[in-house]
Amino acid sequence: MKRTAFFLSDGTGLTAEGLGHALLAQFEKIDFERITVPYIDDENKAHEIVERINLAAENDDARPLVFDTIVKSDIRRIVSTANGFMVDIFGTFLNPLEQELQSASSYTVGKSHSIVNGDNYERRINAVNFALDNDDGARIRHYDEADLILVGASRSGKTPTCLYLALQYGVKAANYPITEEDLTDQQLPKALRPHKQKVFGLTIDPERLATIRNERKPNSRYASISQCMHEIEEIELIYRRERVPYLNTTAYSVEEISTRIMVSTGLKRNR
Amino acid sequence: MKRTAFFLSDGTGLTAEGLGHALLAQFEKIDFERITVPYIDDENKAHEIVERINLAAENDDARPLVFDTIVKSDIRRIVSTANGFMVDIFGTFLNPLEQELQSASSYTVGKSHSIVNGDNYERRINAVNFALDNDDGARIRHYDEADLILVGASRSGKTPTCLYLALQYGVKAANYPITEEDLTDQQLPKALRPHKQKVFGLTIDPERLATIRNERKPNSRYASISQCMHEIEEIELIYRRERVPYLNTTAYSVEEISTRIMVSTGLKRNR
Repeated sequence: MKRTAFFLSDGTGLTAEGLGHALLAQFEKIDFERITVPYIDDENKAHEIVERINLAAENDDARPLVFDTIVKSDIRRIVSTANGFMVDIFGTFLNPLEQELQSASSYTVGKSHSIVNGDNYERRINAVNFALDNDDGARIRHYDEADLILVGASRSGKTPTCLYLALQYGVKAANYPITEEDLTDQQLPKALRPHKQKVFGLTIDPERLATIRNERKPNSRYASISQCMHEIEEIELIYRRERVPYLNTTAYSVEEISTRIMVSTGLKRNR
Repeated sequence: MKRTAFFLSDGTGLTAEGLGHALLAQFEKIDFERITVPYIDDENKAHEIVERINLAAENDDARPLVFDTIVKSDIRRIVSTANGFMVDIFGTFLNPLEQELQSASSYTVGKSHSIVNGDNYERRINAVNFALDNDDGARIRHYDEADLILVGASRSGKTPTCLYLALQYGVKAANYPITEEDLTDQQLPKALRPHKQKVFGLTIDPERLATIRNERKPNSRYASISQCMHEIEEIELIYRRERVPYLNTTAYSVEEISTRIMVSTGLKRNR
């Protein structure tokens, strides 16, 4: 069975999409066609979207689900005339919150993903630049500045995690690959020792690592299962000997890895 | 006035945080202390969080706001005993959605940020790697593979935007800096011409650009206002002459830039 789901906003649409996707994920048996339409900020665009919703209702023989965070009341009024099942995200919660907080909502568009709070925004962008500049052990002289240093075998997920931590939390994360040369004495590489309290380890199942490496360098020694097994075994030994907290990333998304690191390290979001 | 807000989940907490922050952004006069606690997945953790909420209620002389997406019913039951104003995000919407869809929710934890849908997840990670490999005009031989090529002056926001597009939408975005050498003939740089239909331009107010560049290279010619004015003027001239769609990023966050590019280009999310 197919249903269409719209995510509508007069801002970026990220909030409507985020909540909408989370809710739809609970209905695994249904095949949803997902359509995000952000920046619905004038009456023409509102009428256009009403037509699209009505058309989808006809084609599907079922009214679409409409998740919206539209703030402007004249736009809301038009969109609510569509033949959809309306999930009014802000409308549902803002009124009770106003009561509880004894304060009027400002009903302004696009607050949460704007640069209104300039300092926090700059911290996030600086954190992205920090992650890029300090990727892959490229430089170690800025480790003093780092909130976190992710270590692990090549292709265990360090770089995407650092970038996500930067964008989502404004956390400055460097990363350092533990390579074969570092595996001789079962200790943390020298460059990391002065910063041991910031070090967090990633590990991954050797089979998964071999698959990932094979995409990068097919049939290389680097991607062989024996090499991956050797590296992972030695690296986990270092983590345990040096009491470095670590996480096996095999079954986790970059969002899950990042949030688990935040919990485990007690780092505060700079956002 | 200060109030505490908790964002609770038995998964990553990203959905609770995303919606909660968007709602709180509508109450600008109130100073919120924000506490995210993900992975509340056993009864001990549930009891612990009840204590934290009750303590905050005492300290603030007002009950905290509690935004939660906890799915497991035994955990929910415990958390709901806390002295908080409960914003039950899933509870509010899942029941009406079940009715509408004539389908039972699976009540499973952490679906939307997991790697359950492995293909889509891999596309996002591949897109991150693509953005890194094709950053800053480093390589142009993979432009065939790109969904999008972002161009603009150095420090106009290309790289963070490419990374966000990759992580959020699984879009493969390369970026190419337009430097002074490219400004001689008021045309798109040669490397870009065969891919013109994928090119999207960023621009930025010269004053803002000078500020950003000064943080990177203080008092350099590169960061001077005259240099920034010259580059931006010439670059915008190229965009107009070549009819390259473009966006002024000065007032926009990376989320806003990215969503506007998605709208303008009609690119589909690979997620």
